[in-house]
Amino acid sequence: MSRDAATVMQRLDLLGACSEEQGRLTRPFASDAMRRAHEHVTSWMLEAGMAVRKDNIGNLIGRYEGAGGEGTQLLGSHLDSVRDAGKYDGPLGVMVAIAAVQRLKDRESRLPFAMEVVAFADEEGLRYGTTYLGSRAVAGTFDEGDLDRTDAQGVTMAEAIRAFGGDPARVAEDRWKGGKLLGYVEVHIEQGPVLEARQLPVGVVPAIAGQSRQRLTFTGMAAHAGTTPMNLRRDALAAAAELILAVEAEARSTDGLVATVGQLEVSPGAANVVPAEAVLSLDIRHSSDAVRLEHLARLLDVARDVAARRGVSVEAESLSDNQSVQCSPRLTTLLARAALEAHQPAFGIPSGAGHDAVVMAGLTEIAMLFVRCKGGLSHHPAESVAEEDVAVAIDVVGRFLELLAAGQ
Amino acid sequence: MSRDAATVMQRLDLLGACSEEQGRLTRPFASDAMRRAHEHVTSWMLEAGMAVRKDNIGNLIGRYEGAGGEGTQLLGSHLDSVRDAGKYDGPLGVMVAIAAVQRLKDRESRLPFAMEVVAFADEEGLRYGTTYLGSRAVAGTFDEGDLDRTDAQGVTMAEAIRAFGGDPARVAEDRWKGGKLLGYVEVHIEQGPVLEARQLPVGVVPAIAGQSRQRLTFTGMAAHAGTTPMNLRRDALAAAAELILAVEAEARSTDGLVATVGQLEVSPGAANVVPAEAVLSLDIRHSSDAVRLEHLARLLDVARDVAARRGVSVEAESLSDNQSVQCSPRLTTLLARAALEAHQPAFGIPSGAGHDAVVMAGLTEIAMLFVRCKGGLSHHPAESVAEEDVAVAIDVVGRFLELLAAGQ
Repeated sequence: MSRDAATVMQRLDLLGACSEEQGRLTRPFASDAMRRAHEHVTSWMLEAGMAVRKDNIGNLIGRYEGAGGEGTQLLGSHLDSVRDAGKYDGPLGVMVAIAAVQRLKDRESRLPFAMEVVAFADEEGLRYGTTYLGSRAVAGTFDEGDLDRTDAQGVTMAEAIRAFGGDPARVAEDRWKGGKLLGYVEVHIEQGPVLEARQLPVGVVPAIAGQSRQRLTFTGMAAHAGTTPMNLRRDALAAAAELILAVEAEARSTDGLVATVGQLEVSPGAANVVPAEAVLSLDIRHSSDAVRLEHLARLLDVARDVAARRGVSVEAESLSDNQSVQCSPRLTTLLARAALEAHQPAFGIPSGAGHDAVVMAGLTEIAMLFVRCKGGLSHHPAESVAEEDVAVAIDVVGRFLELLAAGQ
Repeated sequence: MSRDAATVMQRLDLLGACSEEQGRLTRPFASDAMRRAHEHVTSWMLEAGMAVRKDNIGNLIGRYEGAGGEGTQLLGSHLDSVRDAGKYDGPLGVMVAIAAVQRLKDRESRLPFAMEVVAFADEEGLRYGTTYLGSRAVAGTFDEGDLDRTDAQGVTMAEAIRAFGGDPARVAEDRWKGGKLLGYVEVHIEQGPVLEARQLPVGVVPAIAGQSRQRLTFTGMAAHAGTTPMNLRRDALAAAAELILAVEAEARSTDGLVATVGQLEVSPGAANVVPAEAVLSLDIRHSSDAVRLEHLARLLDVARDVAARRGVSVEAESLSDNQSVQCSPRLTTLLARAALEAHQPAFGIPSGAGHDAVVMAGLTEIAMLFVRCKGGLSHHPAESVAEEDVAVAIDVVGRFLELLAAGQ
């Protein structure tokens, strides 16, 4: 087991060197760096006894045949990265899946179902500003209008797909057409600090949180900071400050709710001028859509109350509302049982970030296993995962497959 | 009287057309626009019976001789402007002073003392980023190091002074050397909303507030907005929001205190990232230095308490500390009496902004009369003053001079 984890760590290092940029990891969709990554992953899939194919969008898929029973279980994650990324976000899930298949191959074991490991072509959206290209192609929700998007060099997505060996006119054919699906399971780093804080190597994801984003603009009146008495001010920033604290208090007092003001811009932005305008972002997430929307509505009420009391105005613009995705109770229960058999607490931890599993939920049942990462850090070169935790993840996935086979 | 005010309004319109920029008023130090303004002002000073001279820094000075008694009373304000300025900030004080002298001339009246109307060359600091060039030359506090400063076109201040007809090597000679001074009185728009709110045309300034500026940096930790539970966050912006509200509350509950956070920058500034850093400006002013410093110290304590409680750090950097300037009780009392004689309440209003009078206080006793301006607006093309209020200001200054003469 520990040898498997060491192999995964070495492979993640090798993939980490497949970058478009010298000295840091940046691996966009359909890039030369991705081509080099595919060469590695292809050889590892072959070594694990899988038949390897690449689809039009550029997903690399390894298939390990079953013992003749019906259906296919999918495992996977993505191979692309953000700019100046860490080595684990995405590739860890692909490597753990290959390691689990390798264990079966080493024991010359077949499960009653086939398995496919999917290394998705794009989840982060770095090159074309649109996320989940790979899983959307497989789930059949790829938007052909995206083919006309251009990257920073003016290359269209269609051209990029063609240069990478795919046929942009046939992305629709990438949709799953292999018959009955048993589900999709994704291993991913947590990208948060909860497992570390609880000293747990892995966690089982019951749901992926829904998310609302709003942009709020408070408009008061610019005034001279020296000559305008406090009672004659209409300070847009002070109004924003009240809302920021209300957002924090609302989330603190609501189990599982996270709410964040990450952007705030003040105009005119001079030390001696009372702010006329404050524009801020509000990001609010919860694994229950009803809870999320209730608290969002309450915070927008607070914003209006604060504004009215201060004689400023406020405008709220909804930027996005993404529903939560519930993981499969059946698969999640099996993952939890596998964790218990691996002598780990079956700790439930909702995902606050999106993953390929969100898109795959449109195609089949999903489940996710989170792996502890150092300091909760991701999208950063200091992203770090411990080999011992990777060993636990491989163990849990292996046991999960056995439980799944036993239940067939 | 009302004819005098109409003349002042017309003259302010004429000066408003002396601009470096088409369609908006921008009149920097030693510019061609200032040269055209000087031509106008010179003719009006001559018309009022004054002898006119220009000193090396570029102040234009009109002298109206007295009836042989000792001493000189100075009146004045500045002729330069900010970019895209209003017509009243500065020139109003010069025009009212000339109008008051014109009244004496029209009655062929001499006071027991001489009067000089000083039209200062630079108060705003637009061209060289350093304020009060004109009054510092007269007060003897001009910094010769400033002569090497360059404007946006690379022209040094020394070259600009020479091109404007002055000798940069002899700015020190601009220092007042006309014998005994009785004081300096400046009429200026309020640049705030207090007189308007109280429906008063003018106010008498007891003191010019001292001002402290600080830059505070809260440093927390960046974290994923979706995956980081509220209790594991160290949100720099939330800490800043607490301080912003504390600053406001402190000033609201302290008579005469104004405190402002006008700048706030958040890093990394992404909607889905908990802010790691928030940098803000703090501007705090009061006409008592002790009160200002006591509350500044208290707010810095609050910042440290907030930071400690939230597990973030805070650094405070002092950018400037300017002491308050007390106006002359003798001259201020005379201005107040003049206001009462003009059937106006003698309303005291401390100045929250700096003026040439601050610098002149290093040379002689000072007093200031504020004139109501629309909406408290200044440094803006919509800056506006009512002719009736200008009439009151001319009347008050005229009565002030008579009271001063009677007391001699």
